[in-house]
Formats: sequence, C-alpha cells, structure tokens
Amino acid sequence: MARLPTVTDVGRVAGVSRQTVSNVLNSPTIVKSETREKVQAAIAQLGYRPDASARRLRTRKSSTLGIRLDPMTNGISGSVHDRFLHALTEQADERGLRIMLFTATDPNDEIRQFSRMRDGADVDAFVLTSTFYDDPRTEWLIANDVPFVTFGRPWGIDDMNDPLHLWVDVDGWSGVREATAHLLAEGATRVAFLGWPSHSGTGDDRRRGWRDAMTAGTSLTPAQLDELEMATEDGVSQGRDAIRSLAPGSFDAVVCVSDSLALGAILAAGADIPVIGYDNTPVANAIGLSSVEQPLAEVAAGALELLMGPRGAEILDRTTTPDEPKHRLVKPHLVVRTRQLS
Amino acid sequence: MARLPTVTDVGRVAGVSRQTVSNVLNSPTIVKSETREKVQAAIAQLGYRPDASARRLRTRKSSTLGIRLDPMTNGISGSVHDRFLHALTEQADERGLRIMLFTATDPNDEIRQFSRMRDGADVDAFVLTSTFYDDPRTEWLIANDVPFVTFGRPWGIDDMNDPLHLWVDVDGWSGVREATAHLLAEGATRVAFLGWPSHSGTGDDRRRGWRDAMTAGTSLTPAQLDELEMATEDGVSQGRDAIRSLAPGSFDAVVCVSDSLALGAILAAGADIPVIGYDNTPVANAIGLSSVEQPLAEVAAGALELLMGPRGAEILDRTTTPDEPKHRLVKPHLVVRTRQLS
Repeated sequence: MARLPTVTDVGRVAGVSRQTVSNVLNSPTIVKSETREKVQAAIAQLGYRPDASARRLRTRKSSTLGIRLDPMTNGISGSVHDRFLHALTEQADERGLRIMLFTATDPNDEIRQFSRMRDGADVDAFVLTSTFYDDPRTEWLIANDVPFVTFGRPWGIDDMNDPLHLWVDVDGWSGVREATAHLLAEGATRVAFLGWPSHSGTGDDRRRGWRDAMTAGTSLTPAQLDELEMATEDGVSQGRDAIRSLAPGSFDAVVCVSDSLALGAILAAGADIPVIGYDNTPVANAIGLSSVEQPLAEVAAGALELLMGPRGAEILDRTTTPDEPKHRLVKPHLVVRTRQLS
Repeated sequence: MARLPTVTDVGRVAGVSRQTVSNVLNSPTIVKSETREKVQAAIAQLGYRPDASARRLRTRKSSTLGIRLDPMTNGISGSVHDRFLHALTEQADERGLRIMLFTATDPNDEIRQFSRMRDGADVDAFVLTSTFYDDPRTEWLIANDVPFVTFGRPWGIDDMNDPLHLWVDVDGWSGVREATAHLLAEGATRVAFLGWPSHSGTGDDRRRGWRDAMTAGTSLTPAQLDELEMATEDGVSQGRDAIRSLAPGSFDAVVCVSDSLALGAILAAGADIPVIGYDNTPVANAIGLSSVEQPLAEVAAGALELLMGPRGAEILDRTTTPDEPKHRLVKPHLVVRTRQLS
C-alpha cells in the first residue's frame, strides 16, 4: 500500500512543526487562524486522515473481536462453526466491529494467542466456541480480566449464573426431546439414540433430552432404554457401523446427535426407518433429512448483546450490573422433511 | 479489558517523565543507568509492554490481511470459501499475520469497505474471492495502489499476466476434462454436462474441459454435444430437474460443475448412471460421490507467496520485480469413490 500521509508530512507541506499540526487536530482554538488554515489546506492537499492505529492507541479500543477458527473437519457438521462465524461477522459489522481470526493447536496454544492479542490491544474481547469441562481458556480469561463470551455453557462449573462467565448456548436437551417426541407421535415405539461418548457436555445434554422423552412417552424400562442408547465418535461411517450393530427389529426410529451420524444411520437402516439428525446442515436440506436447527443468528446476537448491550460497540463492565442477564439459552427447533434418498 | 499500563503510568511509578521512559525504551544509552534501572523496575512492576497499536502507528504495518466473508448459502458447495478461509488463516498465522473479516452486500459496498480499511491502515493487503467479468473491485484496488491477490482469474481482462493483478486459481478446465476422460475410460460414451449459465468465468472454463474431453474421446458432433450440455443455477433440486429433462437413455454418465448439482443428478439419474461432482465437499465424501478436489491449501499458499514471497510478512512491491511470477494456476485432481447410496 502507498505510505499514508503522516502528521509530519502535513507539517512539512504547511511549513509548521508536527506539534502545531497536532494542535490543529486536537486543540484548534489555541492555534492562530492563519496557521490553522495553512494546516487545513495541507491536510486536504495530502488527503491526510487521523489513523485508526493512533485512535486505537488513544482509546485503547480496537473495535475488534477475536475468535479462533477451528481446524477444518471432514464431518458435515463442522460447518456449524462456519455458519456461526458468518452470523457473528454480519452482526458485528452492523455495530461497526470487525472480527479477527486466529488459529490454535490446543487450548494452551489458544491461551498464548489470547495473551499476545491482549498485550497488543488487538481485540476488545474474545468469542469462544466449543467449551468443555474444566476449560482452562475461560479460567485464564477470567483470571486476567479479559472480556469474553462463550458459545457453549461453562460445563462443570458450579454456578451457571457466574457473572464473570457470559455465555450463550442452544438448548440441546429441548431439541432432542422434541425430535424424539415427534417420532413417538408419528408411531415409533422404540427410538434408538445415536450419541457421542460421555463427558461431552453438549452430547450428554442432548442424550438426556432423548431419555426424558422416551421415559415420558413410552413404558420402556431404564434397562430397555440402555439397549437403545449408542455412543460413538462423530462421522458418517461411525453412524453406519453403530446402527449395523443393533439387532434388526430392535428399534423403529433413530435420533442422532449430529447430521453426520444421521446420514450414516440412513445408509444402514434402510428406507422404512425414520431418522432425525441435529444441526440442520446443508446436507440435511439436500437429502431431505429431518434435523434440529440451531438458531445461529440468535446465538450470535445473544453473544454480542451480553458483551455490549442491545446496540453499540463498547464492552460493558458486567460486574457492575448484577441484575443484567449473564447468559442466554436459545431454543432450537425441529425441521421436518421428506427423505429424498433411501 | 482492564486498561493496559501506559508509558505515562510507568513514568509516574518510576518518578520520571514520559519522555524519559520513552528514551529508556528507544535510546537507553542516553539515560543515566540509575534512572534506567528505576524505569525498568517500574516496567516490570506494571507489566508494561510496548503496544501493538503504537508499533502499527510507527511502521504503518498492520500485519493483517482483509478478506470478505461471503454470505452463507444453503448450497453444499458454499463451504469451499470456508475451507479456503481455514487454509488461509492457518498459513497466515505461520507468518505472524492475522485475518480480518468483513462483510459486504455488493461489489460497491465491498469497495467502500476497502476504502475505510485502507484509510485506517487496518490491513496491509486484501484477499479477494469470487472474481467475475469486469470486476470493479480489482479496478478500484489497482487505481488506489492497494495490494491485493485474488482467488480467481481476472476474467475478461486482456492480459492475464498483468503485473498489477496477482491471482491464484484452480485449473477447472483440467479438472473437468480429467473427470470426463475418466468416465469415457470406464466405458461411458455419452457423458452429459451439468453446468452453470454462461458468462460465469469459472463455469465456462469447466464447461470447456468437458467439451474438449468429449471432442477428443468420442465421435459425437458439436450438435450432439449441444444436446448433452445443460446449464442451470446451482442447487440440488436444480440438478435433479435438469437431469429429469433429458430423455432417458440419451446419456450414460454425468459430469457436474458442483457437488450440489451432482447430488441432484444422483437423485434423478438412478444407481446405474455414474456421476462426478466438483469441489470434493464433505457431502461427496459422506455419500461416496466421486468429485474434483480443489487443492485449497495450495491456493492459500500461492496467494501468500505472490503477496509476500516464499516466507515473511512484508508485502512485496511486485512492480519492481518484473521477472517474478504474478499468478499461479493450480491443478485439481479427481477423487474416485464408490457410491454409498442409490
């Protein structure tokens, strides 16, 4: 980029000192009108503009939010983070905020990035995704008094209302419960659940939604429910293998914790077994898979409102507003479709 | 964020002037050692660090690249831009560069964003995606001497080697030609082409790949090829409708300009018609769709190398290096799979 004109350049053209230019910009009344006019003419001639870096330096505000870009996954649900990033960027833009991306290899590396960006005053706050039990990242941010909001509950902490931990999350329990109840209402009696291994906060929450709906809507015993409950890593082939491991006829519908697993379930279970996924990915839309939609625009709006109020771009000091909500739990909704493939 | 300590704070704690602190930081030899030690103790006590904004102001370098985040599409190929963004962010990170995201409603709005970020010295260069004929964005960037590189050829300009227009692109002609030749080698004789409407530079380029492979590998006349050539907007249902409009038996394989169209083609054409998509999306991997893979990591590496050389984070002045390559055309490759659904 061509070097931008500086205060020094303006002074040179106007034949005055750098300090005089600075006075014209910041305290024009102390400068003689003749001098002021010369400086203003030089500013116009050079197209000089006060610099954003200088403004950032004065205000110590970057008007920028930092967010880690997750590594690309091959799963079809990985796009959820990308869709959240789109929603966040668009809504931040409406507030005059920008989004700074960075990458990190693990939580400790992410903390090193936080530290570097904090030291540089590069961002005003961080937006974190994919929270997990005993998350060291939020501990560090709280200990270092760095504003942040998480997409995801602070799994494992005692007080979900901790005013130091702003969070937005989607009520996965409610979404999976609704999906399961829908299948029962449509005539299913033995809805299998395809989930992730335990100690994923998000996965455990969704599993409870299935279990509560089955307990309320069927007369199956806890032991019978255990037989319908599967846990596997995420992925299409994992979903297929899990369903193949069930005895044919032992289940008549499947609810899955992700669209990737649901696609695998469809490939293994055949055309007459209804399957519901989670995330409402473009793939679900493409193949006619019913799926639970996470309202990501609402999540992004909630994250920005918790940090900065209903509008504006200034980080609020939430410790001084004890009555303001510090989190938001957003309801997902089931999108019902007719399957396009067997 | 807690206010960071400033030079003024350091001076107050050390009992010296702001200028003396500045001298310790920038010209320590001119400061008495006793004073220097007091200032260094205050720096350590307060945890003061020279500010990135101040550094940016001195150097007029932001170490940041700007890129527009495309609006989210419902198509399954939209993720190509997201995958490119991941590759770019990771590789920029390795050079100590960050990525600043913004949104724009149309090309003129994007130009307004360029202008604002240029004026603020917020970014050192821009990375553009989705170039098109008579693109006003690159005209503006060239006219305003703002460094940039495009992912996508400067469609429509006379000189693809214009040193002012750095670009990286994937050789779609080669990719679709390879896919078509593969189907012919496997026994197909009448490969239909499902493309986008004309005057998409990218789409026209891929169409030529199909046509050249069919001309070389079959004895079909131009008029017969015309009957096998379809053009439609992108999308699964559009792909399905296009294939349904062909007479059954008039084609025995399909090459598509996107995985979205390919998924539609699969749903309409039945299990015995081979289909090849383009973009090698996670969906293709999930359902066993053969597809042309764009090597996005190589595209991202090429973009950074054209801007800044093989390593480093300084924008090169390419007008002074006439012998250096100003563009890079990357070869895609066909990923062959066994279909998992009928």
